[in-house]
Amino acid sequence: MKIKDIGEFGFISRLASRCHQTLPEGVVGIGDDCAIIPAPDGRQYAISTDLLVEGVHFLTSEISGNDLGYKALAVNLSDLAAAGAEPCGAFLSMALPEDADVDFLDSFADGFNGLAQQFHCPLLGGDTTLSKQGIIINICVIGIRDGNITVSRANSQPGDIVCVTGALGDSGAGLEYILAPDKERDSTANALIRRHLHPTSRIEEGKFLARCKYVHSMMDLSDGLASDIKHILERSGVSADIELDKLPTSPLLQQKYGNSPSKLYHYALHGGEDYELLVTVDSKHFADLNVEYQKRFGTALYAVGRIVCGDPQHVNYIENGFGTMPIGSSWEHFC
Amino acid sequence: MKIKDIGEFGFISRLASRCHQTLPEGVVGIGDDCAIIPAPDGRQYAISTDLLVEGVHFLTSEISGNDLGYKALAVNLSDLAAAGAEPCGAFLSMALPEDADVDFLDSFADGFNGLAQQFHCPLLGGDTTLSKQGIIINICVIGIRDGNITVSRANSQPGDIVCVTGALGDSGAGLEYILAPDKERDSTANALIRRHLHPTSRIEEGKFLARCKYVHSMMDLSDGLASDIKHILERSGVSADIELDKLPTSPLLQQKYGNSPSKLYHYALHGGEDYELLVTVDSKHFADLNVEYQKRFGTALYAVGRIVCGDPQHVNYIENGFGTMPIGSSWEHFC
Repeated sequence: MKIKDIGEFGFISRLASRCHQTLPEGVVGIGDDCAIIPAPDGRQYAISTDLLVEGVHFLTSEISGNDLGYKALAVNLSDLAAAGAEPCGAFLSMALPEDADVDFLDSFADGFNGLAQQFHCPLLGGDTTLSKQGIIINICVIGIRDGNITVSRANSQPGDIVCVTGALGDSGAGLEYILAPDKERDSTANALIRRHLHPTSRIEEGKFLARCKYVHSMMDLSDGLASDIKHILERSGVSADIELDKLPTSPLLQQKYGNSPSKLYHYALHGGEDYELLVTVDSKHFADLNVEYQKRFGTALYAVGRIVCGDPQHVNYIENGFGTMPIGSSWEHFC
Repeated sequence: MKIKDIGEFGFISRLASRCHQTLPEGVVGIGDDCAIIPAPDGRQYAISTDLLVEGVHFLTSEISGNDLGYKALAVNLSDLAAAGAEPCGAFLSMALPEDADVDFLDSFADGFNGLAQQFHCPLLGGDTTLSKQGIIINICVIGIRDGNITVSRANSQPGDIVCVTGALGDSGAGLEYILAPDKERDSTANALIRRHLHPTSRIEEGKFLARCKYVHSMMDLSDGLASDIKHILERSGVSADIELDKLPTSPLLQQKYGNSPSKLYHYALHGGEDYELLVTVDSKHFADLNVEYQKRFGTALYAVGRIVCGDPQHVNYIENGFGTMPIGSSWEHFC
C-alpha cells in the first residue's frame, strides 16, 4: 500500500494512533493548529511547525528570497494566531543544495527577519544541512497565551455563527498566475500574486478572539474553507450550512471574476493559503463581538453560515437562500 | 557566491547576524545544542531541532523504517542530553513521495515510538506534506531542566579535563559499511552498523552532569570530536590538548583496526554520529565526579585531554606524550 492510497489525513491518524502516549496535565497534543504546554505564571505555550518543499510549496523561479522568507514565517505565525498566542520565537531548519545562491539566502533572511521583528519573534535556533534537490524549509514557532484560553477546533456548537476574518480566494487566484508564468499579468493579477506571497498575519485578531468566551472554535485557513472547516466539524461532531453568496471576496477578485459567481465560489472555497481565521461564535453574542472587533481592527468578521446538527462529513452549501449546491472535493496532499 | 563557498557555519553566522533580535530575560538563542525559554516553577525548557534528508543522512535501501524512526528521534534527544534536559515532547514534520510505502512508514512510527515511550517523549504535533524526491524528516524536541543549570559551550576554563561519555568511532566505521553495500560484512561489521543506526541516548547522564557545578561545558558529538570540540573552544576562547592514545574505542573497533592506531584515531576523531557527550570538568573535582558517575551509570567518563590557553582554531594533538600530530579538517556541510 502506498501513501497516496490513504492520503495525508489517513497517514496522520495512523501515525497518531501508533505513537499514542498519555499526556501530562496541561499538555495538549495533536488535533489543533498548535500543541499546548504549560508556561510560567499559569500561562500556556502554543507550538506549531510547518514544512515547505521547493517544487511543492514554492518555485524559486517565481518567488524572491525575501518573499519566501516572509511567507515561510507567516504560515507558521498563522497557526499561533489560530491558538490566540503571541509569538515568542522561531526555529528554522533549512536543507540547501550546494550551489544555493548566497544573495538569495541573504534576501530570505531579510524577509524572514522583517516579519519576525514586526511580531517580536526572534530566531532562537535551527539546523542547516545539504539537500540533494531544491530548498527545504521547516519552521517551528512558539507562542504564549493566557492560561484560561480554551478555544479549539472541538468546541463548536449547533447555532454558532461561522465567520472569517477577511476576503477569501485572492491567494489561490494569485497562485494560478504563478503556475502559468506565460499567462499575461495585468496590475490586478500582480496584486493577487502579492496576496499569495504576503498573507496578512492575524496575530492580534487571534489574541482578541481567543480571549472572548463566546468564540468556541478557531483555526487558520490554509487549505481552503471547504477543506479546513471539516476539521472543526469532525472534532466538534457537528455539520454546517454555508451561504455561498456571503463568502467575502476582495475587489481584486471581483474585478477578475465578478461576472462568474461560480468562479468566485471556487477560489473562496478551494483556493487555499488565505491564512485568514475561521471562527465559530455563539450567535447571541456575535453582533456585539463584531462591533467591538471592527472598532479594534477596522475590518469586520464576515458571517458565512451556521453550525448545525448533522453529519460532519457533509456541509450544506446554500446559494441565495435556496437548495444545496454540490461542492467538489477538498485539498489533501498525496491524493 | 554559492553556499559551498561559505560553508555551513559561514551560512549560520550570516543568518544569525541578519536575524539578530534582543532576547527577553531567561531566553537563550543560537549557540548551544538547545535554545532555552522559561518554564513553570522557575525551570527551563530546552528546545532543539534536526533535519534529516534522504540521500544525505540516510539511504532507505540501507535502513529499515524502524531504525530510521529510532535514529531520527535519537539524534534530537542527544541535543536535550547535552543541555541536561528531560524530554517533554516531540514535533515530527515529514515530506513523503506519493509512492512512499505505508508498511515502511508504520515501521518508522514504531521505531520512533519505541524510543519516545522509553523517554516519555510524546508526539505532540507536526506536519505532513508531499516530497518531489525522497523522504525528509524534521523533528523538534522540547525538554525541561532545573532553572539553575548554566552548562553551555561557552564556560570551559583552562585546566578543565576534557572527557567523553563512551567509545568513539563505531558509528563512523559502521557508516562506511553502509555506504559500500558490496563490502563483505562479518559479525563485527554488522555490530558497527548497529552502533551507527542505534546510538545510545545519554539523557540520564546529561541530566546528572548538567546538575554538577564542576561541569563547565557540555555538547553532543554529532560531527566527530575534532570538529565538534571547536565549537566549545571558540565559544569559550580557549584551546585544548587532546591525547590520541586516550581516545576511548570499543572492542569492536579495536578488533577491526587495532593494528592501525592511525585508523582508530581517524574514526574516533572524524567518524561522527557517536552521540556521546563531550564534557569539560574542573580538574580538581574530576576524580570524585567520575567515581560518582561510575556508581550511577556503570560506565566511566573517559578523560581525553585538557583545556589550555591558546588559539581556539588550533587543537594540540599528542601521541604517547610526544609532540603535535597534524589532524585533518573537520566535517562541515556544503564544503
